[in-house]
Amino acid sequence: MTLIVQKYGGTSVGTVERIKRVAARIKRCREQGQDIIVVVSAMSGETNRLLGLSNEITTRPIPRELDVLLSTGEQVTIALLCMALHEQGCVARSYTGSQVHIRTDSAFNKARILEIDEQKVRSDIAQGRVVVVAGFQGVDQDGNITTLGRGGSDTTAVALAAALKADECQIYTDVDGVYTTDPRVVPQARRLDRITFEEMLEMASLGSKVLQIRAVEFAGKYDVPLRVLSSFEEGKGTLITKEEQQDMERAVISGIAFNRDEAKLTILGVPDQPGVAHQIVGPIGNANIELDMIIQNVGADGTTDFTFTVHRNDYQKALDILRKLADDLGAREVEGDDKIAKISLVGVGMRSHAGIASTMFKALAEEGINIRMISTSEIKISVVVDDKYLELGVRALHSAFQLE
Amino acid sequence: MTLIVQKYGGTSVGTVERIKRVAARIKRCREQGQDIIVVVSAMSGETNRLLGLSNEITTRPIPRELDVLLSTGEQVTIALLCMALHEQGCVARSYTGSQVHIRTDSAFNKARILEIDEQKVRSDIAQGRVVVVAGFQGVDQDGNITTLGRGGSDTTAVALAAALKADECQIYTDVDGVYTTDPRVVPQARRLDRITFEEMLEMASLGSKVLQIRAVEFAGKYDVPLRVLSSFEEGKGTLITKEEQQDMERAVISGIAFNRDEAKLTILGVPDQPGVAHQIVGPIGNANIELDMIIQNVGADGTTDFTFTVHRNDYQKALDILRKLADDLGAREVEGDDKIAKISLVGVGMRSHAGIASTMFKALAEEGINIRMISTSEIKISVVVDDKYLELGVRALHSAFQLE
Repeated sequence: MTLIVQKYGGTSVGTVERIKRVAARIKRCREQGQDIIVVVSAMSGETNRLLGLSNEITTRPIPRELDVLLSTGEQVTIALLCMALHEQGCVARSYTGSQVHIRTDSAFNKARILEIDEQKVRSDIAQGRVVVVAGFQGVDQDGNITTLGRGGSDTTAVALAAALKADECQIYTDVDGVYTTDPRVVPQARRLDRITFEEMLEMASLGSKVLQIRAVEFAGKYDVPLRVLSSFEEGKGTLITKEEQQDMERAVISGIAFNRDEAKLTILGVPDQPGVAHQIVGPIGNANIELDMIIQNVGADGTTDFTFTVHRNDYQKALDILRKLADDLGAREVEGDDKIAKISLVGVGMRSHAGIASTMFKALAEEGINIRMISTSEIKISVVVDDKYLELGVRALHSAFQLE
Repeated sequence: MTLIVQKYGGTSVGTVERIKRVAARIKRCREQGQDIIVVVSAMSGETNRLLGLSNEITTRPIPRELDVLLSTGEQVTIALLCMALHEQGCVARSYTGSQVHIRTDSAFNKARILEIDEQKVRSDIAQGRVVVVAGFQGVDQDGNITTLGRGGSDTTAVALAAALKADECQIYTDVDGVYTTDPRVVPQARRLDRITFEEMLEMASLGSKVLQIRAVEFAGKYDVPLRVLSSFEEGKGTLITKEEQQDMERAVISGIAFNRDEAKLTILGVPDQPGVAHQIVGPIGNANIELDMIIQNVGADGTTDFTFTVHRNDYQKALDILRKLADDLGAREVEGDDKIAKISLVGVGMRSHAGIASTMFKALAEEGINIRMISTSEIKISVVVDDKYLELGVRALHSAFQLE
């Protein structure tokens, strides 16, 4: 028997009608001889409704109680889905995170899964039941309810697939796979049949919000084949696997990710001495601001320039910190820009192909787009441009690398 | 320290504003030096919302999954109440039925509490916390979520009070106590300061729906002083205790209960022989119809007449069963009436006072009300009258026994 873990997100179970449709799909898989474990999110809108109630009481809810509150969302879905499955003659049993012993640490609201006791699930599967597990939640060693943070249902699904050595972990969502880039920007964007974990990580973190990063990391770590597919239409979706499973003639570039929520800050003329990067990055991190790109150029006359990007919402806060720092460090100047966008080429193929960067820079230049920053990794080249050039740049690159 | 279990029903926690008000009340009790364990129901409307979702899927939900669904209602309330308590500087911790080990049998939807592990609660209380427990729910020996059936939060509160040997179990509701009769029928109805468990049982089962019968039975069995009071206004409410704690000069009659949801059925001319009562009651019970009053008169010429009352909704079903039975038993005739009402005088005092029945019958006769059936117990006299006489009869009795 093939063992499949299927995860349905909030939109896929957003109404009773949709829950029934999910039940029908699961039934078809059963009829094809698959053993199925289902992980579900809260019905779309439910988490926000619960947060709304909490917000009416306090803007600083105690984390422990917030998890008690939010975890009810998935619990409602597992019960309704099991009812719908039974209605279709499919024997099923639901479990909360706590009931199926999804053990996490005690970091309420953003807990991490430590272990899963898969015995209950195995026993149900052996008895021919569909097992329906509440995503996004777990239980700590003291029996407190925890949640994995928003979108954590993907992680639950992958963790279950890893613990049970499932043949595949399928993430059902409202898109039918991973695309070469956002089809809203480039109508010719094409669905990828396969992509590697590494590429998916770069795509996800750069704004292709199909999958939660943690889930992809987890899947990569435990080598769980992950498939993204649509819960609304039939199709094979996109399979995310290890590189060696890819065919040889794969494209050099898998896709183009982009992000327009960034701002960049530069501190100029910092004395070029050991520890200066830490002196800059430390206070930013302490203020709970996440850094994305960090670039430091070789300095001249004993000073250096240090640039980083942050989420646009954090721009003003970061700017204030940096101005104060500039005085302390004896830096020359601080400048910033919150009208920028980042465009990234992603592909494991670029490791072995020269000329990718040059093709990229040429394509942008031909459109008259000035590159403000460049940063590269093994499988990614990112550039920062003025945000008004975002769509133009993405389309130019999509065409230059023949991703249609 | 005084240890109090407080239970707030769905109306008392029906909105965020009301939850804040409950938190404020709990805080005042803490300031008066009381240790508090709180049991809450789902916010009013929530259980019906969840049942509505389930109904959209199936009219016969699997009992296990229905409990998984419904138990989320109280879980939302415990989290919100704890947040509200913290907001007022009151340290609190929430527990689901499962977390605080409210062990029940496995009768989903109508489970019975078997035991409570009170260690967690004791430890929290010792650390100065308010403990907030989800009512209405528990967990069976296999870790399945169970519910106690509608209104079961009262039972949870009493069970906790019994397990912890609390000084009092306070049931907060939308009325300020137990009345001599329904104030909507008799405006002069008076709130009782005290009433015995037995009297309360008779009052409750007869339609004074202030408290769940099982909770009163439970409280009586474990001798937990029970107080009914309003969550909207200050006041001492009504204390329900054992008889010996009552003062001597108490009234003979505590109150007048009534019920207009009944129908009566009579099977006439049944052969008067051993086993006939069972032959009649058996099939009715098997059809899941609950019997209320059962009366059998001494027979003449070897036959007897057998009368019972059922809920008005079950009238037609019971009538059909009885007609079929009449043939099998060789009975003469079956007759029925679903336009009846039951009025009951309740009072432990009547045990030692003669003349109660005669005063009752006289008061009704003076209003020209014909009595159709009479049934008595140690602390109760019930009569069945045409339902159009219900209000008139209740008022006449309230006045005849000077309950104002």
